Amino acid sequence: MITQDEGSVGIVETEYITFAAPPNEMQLECGRTLGPIALAYETYGTMNADKSNCILICHAFTGDAHAAGRNHPDDPKPGWWDNMVGPGKALDTNKYFIICSNIIGGCKGSTGPGSIDPSTGEAYGLNFPMITISDMVNAQKVLIDYMGIKKLLCVVGGSMGGMQVLQWTVSYPEMVRLAIPIATTARQSPQAIAFDAVGRHAIMVDPNWNNGNYYGNPVPSGGLGIARMIGHITYLSDKSMHAKFGRNLQDKTEPEYDFVTEFQVESYLHYQGDSFVKRFDANSYLYITKAMDYFDLAQPSGELKRELARAKAAFLVVSFSSDWLFPPYMSKEIVSALRRNNVDVSYAEIQSDYGHDAFLLEVESLSRLIVNFLEYATPRGEDADEY
Amino acid sequence: MITQDEGSVGIVETEYITFAAPPNEMQLECGRTLGPIALAYETYGTMNADKSNCILICHAFTGDAHAAGRNHPDDPKPGWWDNMVGPGKALDTNKYFIICSNIIGGCKGSTGPGSIDPSTGEAYGLNFPMITISDMVNAQKVLIDYMGIKKLLCVVGGSMGGMQVLQWTVSYPEMVRLAIPIATTARQSPQAIAFDAVGRHAIMVDPNWNNGNYYGNPVPSGGLGIARMIGHITYLSDKSMHAKFGRNLQDKTEPEYDFVTEFQVESYLHYQGDSFVKRFDANSYLYITKAMDYFDLAQPSGELKRELARAKAAFLVVSFSSDWLFPPYMSKEIVSALRRNNVDVSYAEIQSDYGHDAFLLEVESLSRLIVNFLEYATPRGEDADEY
Repeated sequence: MITQDEGSVGIVETEYITFAAPPNEMQLECGRTLGPIALAYETYGTMNADKSNCILICHAFTGDAHAAGRNHPDDPKPGWWDNMVGPGKALDTNKYFIICSNIIGGCKGSTGPGSIDPSTGEAYGLNFPMITISDMVNAQKVLIDYMGIKKLLCVVGGSMGGMQVLQWTVSYPEMVRLAIPIATTARQSPQAIAFDAVGRHAIMVDPNWNNGNYYGNPVPSGGLGIARMIGHITYLSDKSMHAKFGRNLQDKTEPEYDFVTEFQVESYLHYQGDSFVKRFDANSYLYITKAMDYFDLAQPSGELKRELARAKAAFLVVSFSSDWLFPPYMSKEIVSALRRNNVDVSYAEIQSDYGHDAFLLEVESLSRLIVNFLEYATPRGEDADEY
Repeated sequence: MITQDEGSVGIVETEYITFAAPPNEMQLECGRTLGPIALAYETYGTMNADKSNCILICHAFTGDAHAAGRNHPDDPKPGWWDNMVGPGKALDTNKYFIICSNIIGGCKGSTGPGSIDPSTGEAYGLNFPMITISDMVNAQKVLIDYMGIKKLLCVVGGSMGGMQVLQWTVSYPEMVRLAIPIATTARQSPQAIAFDAVGRHAIMVDPNWNNGNYYGNPVPSGGLGIARMIGHITYLSDKSMHAKFGRNLQDKTEPEYDFVTEFQVESYLHYQGDSFVKRFDANSYLYITKAMDYFDLAQPSGELKRELARAKAAFLVVSFSSDWLFPPYMSKEIVSALRRNNVDVSYAEIQSDYGHDAFLLEVESLSRLIVNFLEYATPRGEDADEY
């Protein structure tokens, strides 16, 4: 066992690059361009001489570049994947140079709808162009090029991070040696689109939203809170909710028969909604959910096998048994398409009651799989099918 | 096959009884009283001489007393369970006298939060007392007494209607010969509470809600629409959404990369939300979801078997394989408790991709089960275990 101090990367600083300054804006999938673009990122560990030990972490929907360590000694919590990234951990900073890049469209230091539009001097708001998973990856590619990395040892990520992993393998097949898409899908399901659509609707009917022009004014916290509450239901499982809350009342044993929060699960959701609105921008919520909803790696042919044929990486695909947002069948669809392309692919369905959140919680099982898979990449690598 | 005209009960009229006029108000589970109470109901078929052919239908959350036929010749649609109720149908009006009673707390003709509070002359709003499934059943019991029915041949209903069926069997065990709870649960799950909680939250943060005092003013249609959209996601299944919408765009083949409705599933949800706010009262949404959330037939002992021991009816319990709001395991929990009490219980899990909505859509399978079960109640009834 590694204690927190032993396994921590320590104090880290978020870094930034800026690129695509006009007139060299980045071309986006929607047909529009974006620039200048700032990208926030963090790195952990040391790049080796031939730059062959570089691992890129792609974060999930509301994540950020701060995957490990602390930005300040008095930070109450470490980065979002701290239990996976550090000396002696699965993504071992004694061996690997780890990069976590933020996404464009978000609100965590990279250019997004809350950034200043240089053409107006005001926040973009809804003038921000629509971005896709492919655009996010193209921006990250600029960062990897800037670092002089020709080929990433591995690209890894869960949920929307897994979408980026998959996109990397087909957008830049020569640049990815190993790919680890976790708890994700090759195409957003209609049910996931539906949940996203309700979240967006909740934001857009909030009077404070004001067609996206709320910067400097009260934000659409009601709508954003609702969107987050819906999201949290999809991150847990029926079983984990039974275990975590059951039908327990909040701070009482008998119902009071009123419309104040009664059940623990209600209290949990209200808390999650309230705390989220303090740290996330409603317009980013709109843009990023749309990016996920547009994600369909089977396009344009409609055939996933065909579109994944460009991928040259070896894959470790991981799903979690109780994840109903991106259920195991979606991972199996990826695995099946890759296998029919004779790609080297390992698949693991981790038994877990944690639902979609398992990709952040099942540290031990996930670490074992990732450690083994990364060792496979060494010259005396074993056959991936053994894992 | 029965054509619509052959199988219809024809033109029906919604009827009303009023009872519990002060000072004889009805005692409610929450400790408060309610009166006077109006209850809307419809009947189909003819009561026989000894009143032994009476079947009570309990409707689901947003349903009403209008289960079959049309109230006006030019009604575009018949009642909500018309495919199950009529001459020659599963609930055969040639044989049975069918009653469908509305619930209290709703907005479909029975007393609810939108009714006038006689003590103020204004709509109750949040002064309406909290009601429970047990209170709904107690009000229906007054109607059944009023009709002079000593024992119902059968009580049947799906979803929240199924909760009422279960409640009937323990509240009035001597009055129920056969019970058919469909797609339901003996206790609302934390996941279902969570979805309800978000719906309520969406209504209550809508500025138009105004602490429930919106009658005569613009209603909280934004919040109520969101609540309904969430509900609809839980009524469908992942698979039925794939079949019904897939990732198809609405009225176009290429995305336009904007925040106008893009996907068919979004359009469907927006439509459902918009049409719902025209026919349902937001305060009723709050009260009825709370009634479902409080529903826990295992209380007060915490042991379902023990609490169900009062039931004397023979049961047909029906679930649907893809129903994830009230999944089959919840029906099996009921069946298991009843069997351990040596109650006569049949159980069927109908294979269906329709999700929770299956209880309204799987007419053929459901009809076959119900017809057989009802015949079992005749003197030469066969063993229920055969079905």
